[in-house]
Amino acid sequence: MSTSVPPANLMEAVVSLAKRRGFIFPSSEIYGGFNGFFDYGPLGSELKKNIRDCWWADMVRRREDIVGLESSIIMHPKVWEASGHVAGFTDPLVDCKVSKQRYRADQLFFSPVVVTGADGKANTVGYVAALESENTVAELQSAAEALKRKKAIQGTLSPVCAKDFTEAKPEEIALIPSPATGEPGSLTPPRSFNMMFQTNVGAMTDASSVAYLRPETAQGMFVDFKNVVDTGRVKLPFGIAQIGKSFRNEITPRNFIFRSREFEQMEMEFFIHEDDDWAKWHRHWIDWCKDWLRSIGLPDTHLSEHDHPKEKLAFYSKGTTDIMFAYPFGVQELWGIAARGNYDLTQHGTASGKPQEIFDEATKKKFVPHVIEPAVGVDRILLAVLCAGYAEEDVTDEKGNVEKRTVLRLSPRVAPVKVAVLPLLKNKEPLVARARALHAKLKRRYAVFYDDGGNIGRRYRRQDEIGTPWCVTVDFDTIEKPGDTFTLRERDSMVQRRITETELLALLDEQVY
Amino acid sequence: MSTSVPPANLMEAVVSLAKRRGFIFPSSEIYGGFNGFFDYGPLGSELKKNIRDCWWADMVRRREDIVGLESSIIMHPKVWEASGHVAGFTDPLVDCKVSKQRYRADQLFFSPVVVTGADGKANTVGYVAALESENTVAELQSAAEALKRKKAIQGTLSPVCAKDFTEAKPEEIALIPSPATGEPGSLTPPRSFNMMFQTNVGAMTDASSVAYLRPETAQGMFVDFKNVVDTGRVKLPFGIAQIGKSFRNEITPRNFIFRSREFEQMEMEFFIHEDDDWAKWHRHWIDWCKDWLRSIGLPDTHLSEHDHPKEKLAFYSKGTTDIMFAYPFGVQELWGIAARGNYDLTQHGTASGKPQEIFDEATKKKFVPHVIEPAVGVDRILLAVLCAGYAEEDVTDEKGNVEKRTVLRLSPRVAPVKVAVLPLLKNKEPLVARARALHAKLKRRYAVFYDDGGNIGRRYRRQDEIGTPWCVTVDFDTIEKPGDTFTLRERDSMVQRRITETELLALLDEQVY
Repeated sequence: MSTSVPPANLMEAVVSLAKRRGFIFPSSEIYGGFNGFFDYGPLGSELKKNIRDCWWADMVRRREDIVGLESSIIMHPKVWEASGHVAGFTDPLVDCKVSKQRYRADQLFFSPVVVTGADGKANTVGYVAALESENTVAELQSAAEALKRKKAIQGTLSPVCAKDFTEAKPEEIALIPSPATGEPGSLTPPRSFNMMFQTNVGAMTDASSVAYLRPETAQGMFVDFKNVVDTGRVKLPFGIAQIGKSFRNEITPRNFIFRSREFEQMEMEFFIHEDDDWAKWHRHWIDWCKDWLRSIGLPDTHLSEHDHPKEKLAFYSKGTTDIMFAYPFGVQELWGIAARGNYDLTQHGTASGKPQEIFDEATKKKFVPHVIEPAVGVDRILLAVLCAGYAEEDVTDEKGNVEKRTVLRLSPRVAPVKVAVLPLLKNKEPLVARARALHAKLKRRYAVFYDDGGNIGRRYRRQDEIGTPWCVTVDFDTIEKPGDTFTLRERDSMVQRRITETELLALLDEQVY
Repeated sequence: MSTSVPPANLMEAVVSLAKRRGFIFPSSEIYGGFNGFFDYGPLGSELKKNIRDCWWADMVRRREDIVGLESSIIMHPKVWEASGHVAGFTDPLVDCKVSKQRYRADQLFFSPVVVTGADGKANTVGYVAALESENTVAELQSAAEALKRKKAIQGTLSPVCAKDFTEAKPEEIALIPSPATGEPGSLTPPRSFNMMFQTNVGAMTDASSVAYLRPETAQGMFVDFKNVVDTGRVKLPFGIAQIGKSFRNEITPRNFIFRSREFEQMEMEFFIHEDDDWAKWHRHWIDWCKDWLRSIGLPDTHLSEHDHPKEKLAFYSKGTTDIMFAYPFGVQELWGIAARGNYDLTQHGTASGKPQEIFDEATKKKFVPHVIEPAVGVDRILLAVLCAGYAEEDVTDEKGNVEKRTVLRLSPRVAPVKVAVLPLLKNKEPLVARARALHAKLKRRYAVFYDDGGNIGRRYRRQDEIGTPWCVTVDFDTIEKPGDTFTLRERDSMVQRRITETELLALLDEQVY
C-alpha cells in the first residue's frame, strides 16, 4: 500500500536524482561545468537511446510511407542562407556597457515608476528593471518602492507595468537601470544576435571558409529531398525523418536540459501534394504525436495544445500547433507541429537553381510539395519523462511500518533497465545458478541488471528509483517447488506474483517494443 | 548457380551503388557538395544505425562490466588543453604562395632528379613533386624524365627517391616545384595546423569564448570518470563506452567516407588496476574487436593487425595495435586498440586539481587506473561492410540463360532490410492478404519491406542489390496447400525452400541480434 506525495520542489528532486543515479551530469564538471551543455551518464544514455529507438521504430521502421536520413551537422553555408537562418535566426541582445554583461532583450523587463502626488498628478520619477523569473512583477514593484524611498518622493506609488526591453522606446533606454549595476545609462539598444555557432572549414580562417553548426536537422531533409525521391521509391504523401544533434548559441540556457546549447532533435518532414488538405494532415500529425507521447508513458493530464496566433506566424506558415507539457517550471513547448507550405523547398530550389519539384502523373504538371513538420527535442522528452515519472511515497509494509520510497514511473518502452534479476541469497548456489541462467537469457534481447547485494527490500528500492518496471526474484519456491516459477514484483503497484520464464518473455515481448 | 566476378573498379562500383540506392549522398549536393561531409540516405541511415546498435548491444547491454555514456560534442576548452589537443593535434601544412593551394606535407612527395653524365659524375639537376596516390613513384619518375628532356640534359637518369615534404631540407624547399604551378619557389616550409574545429560559445566572439568541436569522443569518458565511479556501481576492471560524432578539419579528406571531416566514433575506455597485466587486456580487446567485426560479416581474409613501432609511440603509450582492413584503395586502419597507461586521467587530475584516483581496498592505497582504448569509426566500418559485401555475379537460370546480378552480402545483423515480403501477384486478393498479415507481424520487430511491383525475379534482384538476406514469397502453395508455408529465398545461395511463419520467426530471432 502506498500514497504518492508530490515533492515540494519536484525540479530540484529530479535534478538531484539525475545526478545521483547517473542519468545526467553537467558537462566538463571537473572544470567547473560548461553553461548550456550536459552529459548523459550510464542510465541517462540508455534512457535517451530508448526514446530515440522508440521514435525511429514507430516513425520509420513500422511505417511504409516514411524513410530515414542522417545528414551532416555541418552543411554547405548556402543551405543556411537559403533557409533564412543567416539573416533571421537571431535573438535580440542588450549589452551593459559598464559590467559587460549581456541579456536577452525579451527576458529583461522594466517599468516606469509612477507616483501620484498630493496635487493628483501622476509623474514618472524613474525606471526599474528585473530579469525574467517566476516573480518578475513583484521584483519590479519592490524595486519601485525602494526607488521612491531612496529619492524620498511623497505620494502614492502606482502598480508597476512590466514590459520587456524590446518594447523600450529610445528615450526610455537611457533611463532604464542595468540589472548588473542598478544604475541607468549603460544599456545599449537591442541588436540582433545570430544564434548559429560559426566555425571555419578548411585551412583558411576567413569569410570564405565560414560554416555553421546546424541549428535544426530539418534542412537536411529539404536539401536531400530530390536524392530521396530519386532513390527511395517514395510517392506522395511521404515523409523523411531524422534524429541528430543541433546547436544553438543561447544567451541564457536554462531549466536544466530544457534549453541547452547542444541538444538532440527528432524531426520529420511529411510531404504532401499541393492540392492536398494540409489542415487534415496537420491534425493527423498532432494526434499522432500525442498518441506517441502517451505510448512512452507521458500522462494525458500533463499534455495540452497551443495554437500559434495567426498574427505571429511567418508569412509562409499555414499554422503551427505546439504540444505543451506541464513541466515543474511551467507549461512549455514540447513538440511543434508546423504546416510550412512549400516555403523551404521553394527557397532551396531558387537558391540552388535546381527546382525541387515532383511530377504529377494525374495532371501532368510539376509542382513543389507542401510539408507538415513535427519537430521535437529528445532532451525535452527525457526531462518530461523524468518529471512526470518522479514520485516519493509513504509505503506501509505488512508489519505496519511506514517508510519512504522514491519511484520513477517510467514506461517499460523507455526504462533504462527492463528487468532486475535478483537471487534471494547470494551464497546459495542453486539460487545463483538459476538467476544467472535467466539473466543470460534475457540480456540477449533486453537491458537487464543482475543484483545480489543487500536485502531484497533494498534491492527493490534501488530499482524503483531508476525506473525498472519489474524485479524477478529467484527464491526457494523457484528451486524447490515444481513449475520453475519466479517472484515477479511490479514497480508501481509493488504487487508480487509468481511467473514462469515463458510468461515473463511474453510479458516483455508485449510491453517492451 | 553463380560465379562471383570482382568488379574491375570495386570502389567506383560501391560509390555508385551507394548513391543509386540511397545509402550515401554527398552533403549539400544541390549546392555543389561540401568537401569532407556526407549524408546517409534511407538505406544508409538504417545500415549505420544497425552497426551502432549491434556495437552498443554487444559492448554495453550484454555485458556487466561496461556502462554507456553520451557526453557533449562541445566541452569546456580546458578539456582539450589538458588532453594535449590544443598544443599537439596538428597536421603539417604547406602553402603554395602563388596558387594559394594548401597541402598536407606528409602527402606531398618530392625527389631530386639525378643524372649521371658521360664523365660518370652524378648531378642533381632539379626536383620533381607529386601528391600521394597509388602511383606516386611512377608519377615522380615520369616527371623526372620530362624535366631531363625539357632541360635537354644528356646522361643516365637515376630512379627517383620519393620523400615526403616533412623531410625536405631548408635548401631543398626553394627548389621543389609546387604541384599546382609546376614551378619551384612558391612552397612554404611546413607549419603546424590544428585540426580541431573552433567556435565561440556565448555572446562574445573573442579569445575568452573559444571552444572546440571534439576531435574524439574519448575525452568524455575521462572527464566523466569520477561521476561514473560515484554513481554507476562499477568496480575495476570496467569500461565506459560512447557512440557519437567527432570532427576533424582534415586538409585533404579522401577515399569517400573513409576520411571525412565529420564522422562518428564508437570508443570504449577500459579501466584496469595499475598493477594489472595491461598486455593481457590489450590482447583481449584486440581479439574481441576482431570477433565482433566477424560477427557483423567482415571476412577474416580482409582483416590483419599492425603494431605501431615502439619508436613512434607517444611517451606514455605502452602499445597500440590497429586492426587493418583491406579496402579497395589499400590496407588501412579500421580499429585502433591503444594501451594508454594512466596518461589521460593523470592529465585531467592535474589540470582540474581533482585527482582522478580510485581507492584500492586490498592495499588501502589510492591510484590512477590505467586504460585500454578500442576506438573505431562507424563510417569506416560501414564502408568496409559495403566493400567486402559487394559482388557482381553471372547467374545461370534453369533454362541456361546467363544474367548479371549485383549482390550486397551483408550480415543479417546489419542489413538495412531483414526480410522482403512479396506476394507472387499483386492482383490476387488471398495472396495479398496473407502477405500483408505476415508483413504486419514482422515489422513490429524488424525492418521489413513489402514489394508487389514487377516480376518476382526482378524483385529478388532489387533486394539482392541492397543486401536483404531473405525474401519471403507468398505463392499459390501458401494459400492452396496445407501448412501455411512460404517460399524462403536466400540471398547468397539463391536457394529456395519452404518455411512456416514459426520457423521464419525462429530464423530471424537467431540471426538478427
